[in-house]
Amino acid sequence: MSGQQAFLDAALAHLGPRGITCDADLVEPWLTDWRGRFQGRARAMASPANTQELSALVRLCAQHAIPIVPQGGNSGMAGGATPDQSGEAVLLSLRRMNTIADVDVEGRQVTCGAGVILEVLHEAAAAEGLRFPLTLGGKGSATVGGLISTNAGGTQVLRHGSMRSLVLGLEAVLADGQVFSTLTPLKKDNRGFDLKQLLIGSEGTLGIVTAATLKLVPAGADRLVIWAGLPTVQAARALLLHCEDVAGEALEGFEVLPQASLEAVLDHMPTARPPLAGIHPWHALIEVVADSTHADRLRDTCETMLEDAFRKELLDDAVIAANEAQADAFWLIRDTIAPAERERGPAVQHDISVPVARMPDFIDMAIRELGAAWPGTEVVAFGHLGDGNIHLHVIAPGGAERTRWQETEGKRISRHVHDLVTDWDGSISAEHGIGQLKRDELARLGDPVALHLMRQIKSALDPSGILNPGKLV
Amino acid sequence: MSGQQAFLDAALAHLGPRGITCDADLVEPWLTDWRGRFQGRARAMASPANTQELSALVRLCAQHAIPIVPQGGNSGMAGGATPDQSGEAVLLSLRRMNTIADVDVEGRQVTCGAGVILEVLHEAAAAEGLRFPLTLGGKGSATVGGLISTNAGGTQVLRHGSMRSLVLGLEAVLADGQVFSTLTPLKKDNRGFDLKQLLIGSEGTLGIVTAATLKLVPAGADRLVIWAGLPTVQAARALLLHCEDVAGEALEGFEVLPQASLEAVLDHMPTARPPLAGIHPWHALIEVVADSTHADRLRDTCETMLEDAFRKELLDDAVIAANEAQADAFWLIRDTIAPAERERGPAVQHDISVPVARMPDFIDMAIRELGAAWPGTEVVAFGHLGDGNIHLHVIAPGGAERTRWQETEGKRISRHVHDLVTDWDGSISAEHGIGQLKRDELARLGDPVALHLMRQIKSALDPSGILNPGKLV
Repeated sequence: MSGQQAFLDAALAHLGPRGITCDADLVEPWLTDWRGRFQGRARAMASPANTQELSALVRLCAQHAIPIVPQGGNSGMAGGATPDQSGEAVLLSLRRMNTIADVDVEGRQVTCGAGVILEVLHEAAAAEGLRFPLTLGGKGSATVGGLISTNAGGTQVLRHGSMRSLVLGLEAVLADGQVFSTLTPLKKDNRGFDLKQLLIGSEGTLGIVTAATLKLVPAGADRLVIWAGLPTVQAARALLLHCEDVAGEALEGFEVLPQASLEAVLDHMPTARPPLAGIHPWHALIEVVADSTHADRLRDTCETMLEDAFRKELLDDAVIAANEAQADAFWLIRDTIAPAERERGPAVQHDISVPVARMPDFIDMAIRELGAAWPGTEVVAFGHLGDGNIHLHVIAPGGAERTRWQETEGKRISRHVHDLVTDWDGSISAEHGIGQLKRDELARLGDPVALHLMRQIKSALDPSGILNPGKLV
Repeated sequence: MSGQQAFLDAALAHLGPRGITCDADLVEPWLTDWRGRFQGRARAMASPANTQELSALVRLCAQHAIPIVPQGGNSGMAGGATPDQSGEAVLLSLRRMNTIADVDVEGRQVTCGAGVILEVLHEAAAAEGLRFPLTLGGKGSATVGGLISTNAGGTQVLRHGSMRSLVLGLEAVLADGQVFSTLTPLKKDNRGFDLKQLLIGSEGTLGIVTAATLKLVPAGADRLVIWAGLPTVQAARALLLHCEDVAGEALEGFEVLPQASLEAVLDHMPTARPPLAGIHPWHALIEVVADSTHADRLRDTCETMLEDAFRKELLDDAVIAANEAQADAFWLIRDTIAPAERERGPAVQHDISVPVARMPDFIDMAIRELGAAWPGTEVVAFGHLGDGNIHLHVIAPGGAERTRWQETEGKRISRHVHDLVTDWDGSISAEHGIGQLKRDELARLGDPVALHLMRQIKSALDPSGILNPGKLV
């Protein structure tokens, strides 16, 4: 009997027929990342129903030295959930582990399996008058396990932090099949190293997240969504500081986009309307949320905040969404930037951060420098200005052939962007992770001391290297 | 030339005469922890002036296989900064590394050396209209480096989290002398494992914290301090939930103490006055802080909150401090519990947490069970109910001889308390750390999977075991 057959038989015994398959029709769709950049092969796809089954599978893989590539909703941005071309790996789907326990309303927390989809989690929290304060474009497919493994961000990080801030407890299967668990979270616990935070954001290379206890917050009595037109990106930063001063903790989101991105969305989505009458070089989308204590004063606060900002010449024009429908329409413009841009031709995308205060100058510099070095390209920067994190997209000149341009000019541009970011003390991956997309760039540009530490930890916790090989470190 | 002399000569060359000493008069005071529980010996005390000097010292120690015991203000609670009796170690004082860089007012952050004393940091932030929102009894001696290495807590964790939440960036010298640094913090950075969080709370066993960039918050326009008398500790928990609902983020502190602790303070400090007229089984000390937006409504909010609580029978009586002096007097009662109790005779102290919702029942159970098993003792529980963290002190029967009682009955009681806490899914160290005090108990009661992970990480990052040996793992 071949090694493969012995492995499959043993896996079948542990996981049952629903838990392991080699059927190409079932496996194939999960072997390519959703952006179509990475394609891999796998000896089988495992879909354990619970942590015990997964633990047995990992022991089996350890015994046979078979690599494991964990996957949630397959909506990652860095190819972190796609196996390599060797066909050695087991593709591990966590999607069956999608139980949500009862929401603990008093404790404002919920425990759920790694396979729970973000949107389902949102609904479960909302049903109890609470919310899970992290959202992003892929919420219909992204899973809790994937969000934790990549320390996902999104549009509410300004107020609530990234996934790292929202995980109260964690369960994970380690490289030897042992189960690490802190699913009964303690608010304070100083019994040694913070293993939970070490596992969060480790992209499945140190352990496989199987479940988590997550923080919920009150649903928020009311929100106001503001669209502002601005003369410069420096004004956007000044406006952000002004809003933080006035609204304090109530400020939940502060996104920026240039006029070009707004126009791309308007072209792409005929039902969309420009929020403001005039043309403005930059736009800010601002969300302010009030709890029950302050809901009655929310509109007054926002109106005063905007009047003061106008007087200080921090903005040229602004409008508060008249109702929830309009608020949603404003956010839809923001969420449509990426698909709208895809229509405009080949592009390379960069998810970068620099120290918050330096971001406006970085954006100006990058647009200027990249435009000069690659004439005909268009440089667009949009996103989470409040977190010092923007998505910097460089769109190819008209007529460029997608794959060829991306593989030649595109790669050179990306290297240059990463060099610039590193010069400015920034990060080449602010929220999307490293995966296989940026692994070489991290090795090239990362702090050697940090890289050495990471490799030491990886070797210590996964000496045979079976957990998501070829990713991150 | 002896190995010791060769080491001292080389250290002198790197650190200069102020940087290394064997003078017993200078070294002796730092060889005993402030509570007098642990006493050690050291071959020398090193006091590097900066990170470069420390890096050179660590390389030298690595070369000579000399253990290093880092120490800040020597105000730790678990003997983590006291060397063992062998006299092999170098005692490393970080106290000379006490530079505070300019406060970044716009970015609300400050970078400072490991040796900066907490109270000095408070003053530096206050001078710029900001505050560092972590405080504790030892603020006059505790240093930033020690607070980070032990992930210190205190009375503002409810709102602002422990030290872990307040460190934006970190610099540390590793076991081989290399310097890890993220002192230019990025709000978002997903380039791999969270090495910063791994170092925080690792008690100097993985690296020596040399500097940090810390988060500051607005100074707060106004605060109100409330003293409430309560029938039961269950009522205290219900009152806490009520205050969280009404005051939301404005609730910064919620401490509880029993009548016995209040009486001990009143006996100990003749100038203190009881905040309320009557006698109440339990007391709560509540602090509510408003930013500039809501300062005008703070008193109204608090009065309504207390009236509703009274109507719901969550409290028997309550008073809002009339002015800052009275507010300080209320807090002084809280801060005097520990010294006041020391006067009442020998005791064993336990810094424990259980899941927040279970704490009231845990307290009742522990008082009942310990009282029955050790007649004549008095069990006192006070502290951070809002964090699920209390200090559970068991005071010896009258006439017990201190050292003997602590070493015999006291140790048995502590083991029993730790067993109870573990049964209730709690932590034997909520905020004080493990050090040498609780190392054996952690080995006895800790999750074997977590302990194994910690030992793997320790071996990987400090293979020769020179960093703070005998502590934590």
